[in-house]
Amino acid sequence: MAGHGYEGGRLDLPFVGISTFGKRPYVGDWSAIGAEVAILGAPFDSGTQFRPGARFGPRGVREASTLFSFGHAGAYDHEDDVTYLPGWVRIVDIGDADIVHTDTIKSHANIETGVRAILDAGALPVVIGGDHSINIPCIEAFEGRGDIHILQIDAHLDFVDERHGVTRGHGNPMRRAAEKPYVTGLTQVGIRNVSSTAKEGYDAAHAMGSDILSVRQARNLGPQAVIDRIPRGARVYVTVDIDGFCPSIAPGTGTPSHGGFLYYEVLEMMQALARRHEVVGIDLVEVAPDYDPTGSTAILAAQLLLNTLGFIFHARGFS
Amino acid sequence: MAGHGYEGGRLDLPFVGISTFGKRPYVGDWSAIGAEVAILGAPFDSGTQFRPGARFGPRGVREASTLFSFGHAGAYDHEDDVTYLPGWVRIVDIGDADIVHTDTIKSHANIETGVRAILDAGALPVVIGGDHSINIPCIEAFEGRGDIHILQIDAHLDFVDERHGVTRGHGNPMRRAAEKPYVTGLTQVGIRNVSSTAKEGYDAAHAMGSDILSVRQARNLGPQAVIDRIPRGARVYVTVDIDGFCPSIAPGTGTPSHGGFLYYEVLEMMQALARRHEVVGIDLVEVAPDYDPTGSTAILAAQLLLNTLGFIFHARGFS
Amino acid sequence: MAGHGYEGGRLDLPFVGISTFGKRPYVGDWSAIGAEVAILGAPFDSGTQFRPGARFGPRGVREASTLFSFGHAGAYDHEDDVTYLPGWVRIVDIGDADIVHTDTIKSHANIETGVRAILDAGALPVVIGGDHSINIPCIEAFEGRGDIHILQIDAHLDFVDERHGVTRGHGNPMRRAAEKPYVTGLTQVGIRNVSSTAKEGYDAAHAMGSDILSVRQARNLGPQAVIDRIPRGARVYVTVDIDGFCPSIAPGTGTPSHGGFLYYEVLEMMQALARRHEVVGIDLVEVAPDYDPTGSTAILAAQLLLNTLGFIFHARGFS
Amino acid sequence: MAGHGYEGGRLDLPFVGISTFGKRPYVGDWSAIGAEVAILGAPFDSGTQFRPGARFGPRGVREASTLFSFGHAGAYDHEDDVTYLPGWVRIVDIGDADIVHTDTIKSHANIETGVRAILDAGALPVVIGGDHSINIPCIEAFEGRGDIHILQIDAHLDFVDERHGVTRGHGNPMRRAAEKPYVTGLTQVGIRNVSSTAKEGYDAAHAMGSDILSVRQARNLGPQAVIDRIPRGARVYVTVDIDGFCPSIAPGTGTPSHGGFLYYEVLEMMQALARRHEVVGIDLVEVAPDYDPTGSTAILAAQLLLNTLGFIFHARGFS
Amino acid sequence: MAGHGYEGGRLDLPFVGISTFGKRPYVGDWSAIGAEVAILGAPFDSGTQFRPGARFGPRGVREASTLFSFGHAGAYDHEDDVTYLPGWVRIVDIGDADIVHTDTIKSHANIETGVRAILDAGALPVVIGGDHSINIPCIEAFEGRGDIHILQIDAHLDFVDERHGVTRGHGNPMRRAAEKPYVTGLTQVGIRNVSSTAKEGYDAAHAMGSDILSVRQARNLGPQAVIDRIPRGARVYVTVDIDGFCPSIAPGTGTPSHGGFLYYEVLEMMQALARRHEVVGIDLVEVAPDYDPTGSTAILAAQLLLNTLGFIFHARGFS
Amino acid sequence: MAGHGYEGGRLDLPFVGISTFGKRPYVGDWSAIGAEVAILGAPFDSGTQFRPGARFGPRGVREASTLFSFGHAGAYDHEDDVTYLPGWVRIVDIGDADIVHTDTIKSHANIETGVRAILDAGALPVVIGGDHSINIPCIEAFEGRGDIHILQIDAHLDFVDERHGVTRGHGNPMRRAAEKPYVTGLTQVGIRNVSSTAKEGYDAAHAMGSDILSVRQARNLGPQAVIDRIPRGARVYVTVDIDGFCPSIAPGTGTPSHGGFLYYEVLEMMQALARRHEVVGIDLVEVAPDYDPTGSTAILAAQLLLNTLGFIFHARGFS
Repeated sequence: MAGHGYEGGRLDLPFVGISTFGKRPYVGDWSAIGAEVAILGAPFDSGTQFRPGARFGPRGVREASTLFSFGHAGAYDHEDDVTYLPGWVRIVDIGDADIVHTDTIKSHANIETGVRAILDAGALPVVIGGDHSINIPCIEAFEGRGDIHILQIDAHLDFVDERHGVTRGHGNPMRRAAEKPYVTGLTQVGIRNVSSTAKEGYDAAHAMGSDILSVRQARNLGPQAVIDRIPRGARVYVTVDIDGFCPSIAPGTGTPSHGGFLYYEVLEMMQALARRHEVVGIDLVEVAPDYDPTGSTAILAAQLLLNTLGFIFHARGFS
Repeated sequence: MAGHGYEGGRLDLPFVGISTFGKRPYVGDWSAIGAEVAILGAPFDSGTQFRPGARFGPRGVREASTLFSFGHAGAYDHEDDVTYLPGWVRIVDIGDADIVHTDTIKSHANIETGVRAILDAGALPVVIGGDHSINIPCIEAFEGRGDIHILQIDAHLDFVDERHGVTRGHGNPMRRAAEKPYVTGLTQVGIRNVSSTAKEGYDAAHAMGSDILSVRQARNLGPQAVIDRIPRGARVYVTVDIDGFCPSIAPGTGTPSHGGFLYYEVLEMMQALARRHEVVGIDLVEVAPDYDPTGSTAILAAQLLLNTLGFIFHARGFS
Repeated sequence: MAGHGYEGGRLDLPFVGISTFGKRPYVGDWSAIGAEVAILGAPFDSGTQFRPGARFGPRGVREASTLFSFGHAGAYDHEDDVTYLPGWVRIVDIGDADIVHTDTIKSHANIETGVRAILDAGALPVVIGGDHSINIPCIEAFEGRGDIHILQIDAHLDFVDERHGVTRGHGNPMRRAAEKPYVTGLTQVGIRNVSSTAKEGYDAAHAMGSDILSVRQARNLGPQAVIDRIPRGARVYVTVDIDGFCPSIAPGTGTPSHGGFLYYEVLEMMQALARRHEVVGIDLVEVAPDYDPTGSTAILAAQLLLNTLGFIFHARGFS
Repeated sequence: MAGHGYEGGRLDLPFVGISTFGKRPYVGDWSAIGAEVAILGAPFDSGTQFRPGARFGPRGVREASTLFSFGHAGAYDHEDDVTYLPGWVRIVDIGDADIVHTDTIKSHANIETGVRAILDAGALPVVIGGDHSINIPCIEAFEGRGDIHILQIDAHLDFVDERHGVTRGHGNPMRRAAEKPYVTGLTQVGIRNVSSTAKEGYDAAHAMGSDILSVRQARNLGPQAVIDRIPRGARVYVTVDIDGFCPSIAPGTGTPSHGGFLYYEVLEMMQALARRHEVVGIDLVEVAPDYDPTGSTAILAAQLLLNTLGFIFHARGFS
Repeated sequence: MAGHGYEGGRLDLPFVGISTFGKRPYVGDWSAIGAEVAILGAPFDSGTQFRPGARFGPRGVREASTLFSFGHAGAYDHEDDVTYLPGWVRIVDIGDADIVHTDTIKSHANIETGVRAILDAGALPVVIGGDHSINIPCIEAFEGRGDIHILQIDAHLDFVDERHGVTRGHGNPMRRAAEKPYVTGLTQVGIRNVSSTAKEGYDAAHAMGSDILSVRQARNLGPQAVIDRIPRGARVYVTVDIDGFCPSIAPGTGTPSHGGFLYYEVLEMMQALARRHEVVGIDLVEVAPDYDPTGSTAILAAQLLLNTLGFIFHARGFS
Repeated sequence: MAGHGYEGGRLDLPFVGISTFGKRPYVGDWSAIGAEVAILGAPFDSGTQFRPGARFGPRGVREASTLFSFGHAGAYDHEDDVTYLPGWVRIVDIGDADIVHTDTIKSHANIETGVRAILDAGALPVVIGGDHSINIPCIEAFEGRGDIHILQIDAHLDFVDERHGVTRGHGNPMRRAAEKPYVTGLTQVGIRNVSSTAKEGYDAAHAMGSDILSVRQARNLGPQAVIDRIPRGARVYVTVDIDGFCPSIAPGTGTPSHGGFLYYEVLEMMQALARRHEVVGIDLVEVAPDYDPTGSTAILAAQLLLNTLGFIFHARGFS
């Protein structure tokens, strides 16, 4: 049995130690990942159309995650009476993909390389952006690995095909994904307000099989019913744009949009999803920590990721 | 048909260009406004009783509004399946009223001059404060232009008659309005918590015909029922004090008050209002951007104004 | 009858004057308190496990409280049609307990001395932390003064017995309280997410008689039903950790946890409590103002305390 | 001999206790000041032409001053080998002048009343602004009390006569002072860069007897030589606009101007002044703490004031 | 004679009005510039290697420049006894070059187009970045317009040839410039500390004719002697990276480096340059306003640009 | 020869990757350090007397240090024409000492353990605080390892013996050091202004052999002459309190004091020291990053440490 480690060793308070994700081990050798989950940073933000700074998302989320890194053997949730993420769920942090300033293609390729390495190791990839364009190489890394369905939490549809030649900016990823033969559908939740996607983008999304729900629509349905709209049996890739949340809890982002989700609304979707579907990959993007001096946004990202991982591995029988 | 303009010309990302409201044209000549809507800044904040800084409200809201200035031909809303604010709703920014420090009377007079110019041009005045005292000259500009009813969204009643000689501070505007013969009534929504108005102010407001609703009362009624309390057929002037909203989304203001409205609660009131009443003028006040380093408050103001304008002109048949 | 004081004397706007709590008189002589309520600062934050800064909680809450210090004779609430805290509810500020850096025992002893002085004077102690460890001496000061029940509003259970020798940190207070023979029970509300308390702490709390409710559980019950779970007739001590609230309105704290209470949820618990129970003491802890540049957190603390005091003394017949 | 008080009583660390200036006693009764020095806050900032917020100057400087409030019996300076401000220099804080929003005349009158009360008590007035317009009532309070010379440390000449009717804004005080028959001259130091004073203001200042020095001119002369330009025997009133300092150490102000003084340059002027002249009054203005999240500006103001008071009373034989 | 405009019209305080540079007229038609000086924003920051945010440099500097926009007819400097920038020096703001996210080549081309338009109009181009990579298209716009010498104020040499394929990032501009046949030499001043340029970059710079001076070397020489090293008669293009300044006054930038210049050191170089050389173009880059909540960095940029323009046109006989 | 590594592998921009100090390898096994330099974090701040937050100093300085982590083989300094810190100077980051909240003794013991491990490995210990009290265990770790002289850069003397029982707070370290038989003397530089040390502390320091210099005294001497006062041949331990620097460049600290050193003044002392003495250990304390939103303070600390290490190993023949 794994003890919580308080009797011996270090107290290891949250503010102590190097900021890897959850203070989990750093694995610099991408050919020796050996874990159930691998965290990859993708600090690219040249795809943004308003405030930059998501390049510091990986560092910000890592540092915030230490708040949840008490030396327990797992995280006990009294509401569920479950200890999530027991010690035998191995989570490693493999650092960041290499970014080449002024070069979107190379930067995206390096991100894809990292995700492929994780998938090759049989681990669950959890990629921390960076702006939402980093979803493009993440999805490309899934080529040849079976069909996937995408669940997107976002304020914006991100379904622009091309504009002024731009095809890999943060307004394009869902369109790029929908084009892939192995992406069988998209569930796009939280979409609201004016954004870079014009009416024609919505029309295209519907035509390519998207199920689009606004915050109010999703709220009326409830988390379980939203998840129930995903085709049964689908292997699901989750992409969370932090601006899917309300700016009240996620102001530290590039293009905030009022009227977003509150914490439990998304958390309960994640829990429902984990119970019903295999989750094959996750990215969480658009955390720009320097726009939130309170730190709430990065804490939200870390809290959501750790709880979602708990749900996934509990559903897989790890707890 | 107006195209969205992406094929040619500029991409014009939100962070690019001079910060007029919505990046709409600046019209410096107030005798040649020629538009459906004219934006006027009223950067006066000497009427505040706690934190100043609303003088930077016009600049802050203008800059935030650029986030919603993608080059679309209008703003498509997928929930309503409407493209609001198509190109033929002409919106212009006429700059700011001249403010004379240490002189409330002159500053207010200059604001009144600006609003009169807009009304003379047959345009809808949208005034960005400044503190709530700037509502006083706004309402005075409506003298001789028919009866109006006032819908106020605010945490505070602002119904102080006079105290230590002060009659034109930010605690006085609704009292000043109620005194006008052409103001036929007030609907005051969101009022809560202790403020500069004492019990006698509430008594006076009721005596002068105000309908006062707290946030909890309005929430219980729902947006439509709140609007239904406005006398049918009334021409409505809307004054939004940003502190009517919850500090979670509007911390950048002088006198925050917890327990305020969330985004959709007010937005849906605006939509219900636009469907049922002629809106003859708008002011939005008390945005003090320097108290909100995340920018959420100014973004809220811009998002609310642009959507409200969309509702108004959709109701007028522009879309 | 007490007038509101506007006719003569000073206008006394919120930003004017020395920042005592509510601009009430400072009483430096702890043997001559002579009031119904005495405010004590307990600026100790060496018990924190993540972000420090709660040592500036007393100053921050005092300064924020001036926003609610208009010169009215009491605070009129139009929803209740009650003027709370009329002039004859004497509130004094007795300053801060002396803190000795690097020495938890001495600092706690000085806090206990202050609370004892207030209790000896027959006044209601209202202690502003500092981190949650300052609850330990507050409760110790109640020794020999009859049985009490504790109502805790908090994200964290704070029920760690001992770890690495630490027994008086901010993760320990509820365990320390539960050990006291005169503490007959605890109602712990708002508890959620991973924290320093592991599963064994929850088991111990239940074994020692705690009633533990998460935010979602309390929300489902409603404020009145939560309060109804407190044994009838109990004299109640209230401890509010500001992180019981949602980070959207209380980001300025050491260990934020998403998914917390909104304003009215807690306020209504306080109102229900005041109607049903004698409140014998209050502490409000973990406000770290420097982590919230908007000031919302300190304003929340001040607004909650002043309204709660209003409810308590209204229930006692003061209004 | 006064002990430093550490053996008994409180440790009284800087962050502990109510924020009066230097944690000195608060005297609310202006007819019973009984001290060598009286601190008065003048939180008026409606005279500003750019960023407001100096209304929080008194609170900010008071809070910062607690950093220098260790329980020593005086402040030992090892460079001078002097213990300044021994216990028998009585300093009291008399709170703030009452401010009436929207009314410059009344607000100024209230400030004048406060300064007169201090002078009537035979104490040295130290007034913390507020914007520089509060110097106007400060100087007016000296009417009938003998001739004074003014030493101004400032980036701006503040010598505007009248513009758009404004005569009591923060661009006017030195002109108002120069008009007084009992003001025998001005030494204006630190003046640089473009400001609200145009060439005609400089001409008027020279004509009315001002000695104007830029930062570079004063730096070339050295602190002693600058002070030596003040007529021998003059009783000197000192007005320090914090923007006389370099924005590197004083960014928290309304109209920052690069190229200002560094700390010792002004401190040494104050020391030279105190040795050579009777100082009859001091104001320090334009600290707007909310524009400096690091707190450096308010700390600078407090550090300068406390050291200057030390120099003055050392010269008077108190040490 | 041009009056200062205070008698009639508007007071036009700095915080009033649309934020064009210096509140000068906006000219949207780049074929009708008609001015002595044209300001162009180049809000591109994908070339940065650490903190982004320089895309908000143009907006930040424009807003800060309003502080120096009092309605005077020119800016009187009492040290020089000169009124700089009298009304007949026409300065216009032509807005921003269009930026295409993820596409460095297109963005740079659009910047070049803007500079060419200014040069074609016979006006002095003043380009506000953006990161230092925007200097590349600025210099390219000078092709075919005669020889130029470049004076660079910067912490970093920016002389990287190519790395991982990157040739147009913010570490490359001086190398790109040195390659141009019409760039006859570079004077690189302020260079210090470790940066992206390795030893081989310094060797290459020397080989290609650069004169490199550190801050300490330049300080020892004095401003005039630094300028005297520029070949007599050279037409000079000035590129100011704000990180050439000390972080004490310019913290709002992407790659701060301690030990930089103070204000007058650079100002006096600009004044000496204007007296001795024809200045044919200016860019000022790397202001990232969101990293400086005090606003000092943007104010520095605005103050430096306005004074430098004053020197240039005074030397040309405009004053 | 060590190449700079750009040809192959990663570009590794500063913002990419896990934040160890200088992105150097993390060595978690303190019995296998194997390096010339080992970095240890000591995130303890319960010894502070004003603003806390130095517990985030290690994380802040590590993150800032990545700015100087370009992939060069060493850091080329063009002023010295030296490439410092070539690849064969092995620097490792061994993480943080374990901190036990509320327990100063245990926390200090854990820090001492870490320093002893470094010394046992024959590496140079570089300890990042934390408040200045962490110097106490650092010095204690040197027991039995030969005599050392201490060079302190600081605003405050930190020579309090005992007060209210406190002997290990941040006002005590130099007194504790002076008591050690193996500490042969102290050179205390930068000492200024009022602080926790009273006159008797200065007397004691002089009596125990300290050489105390203020900023102005050190500035008059020059860096070399300051270092020349250290006894020739002494093995020197350097303790840098970041508040020895001017708040203009180091505002992010607990007890800022105006009038401090600028960058080169300290850097040149370090360079002179490294040339003349063996440096046996370094600590850098009191960086509280959350009080400096610009990041300048942490960048200063990182820049100073990396350059000082360069000087030390250059003097040892590594370059």
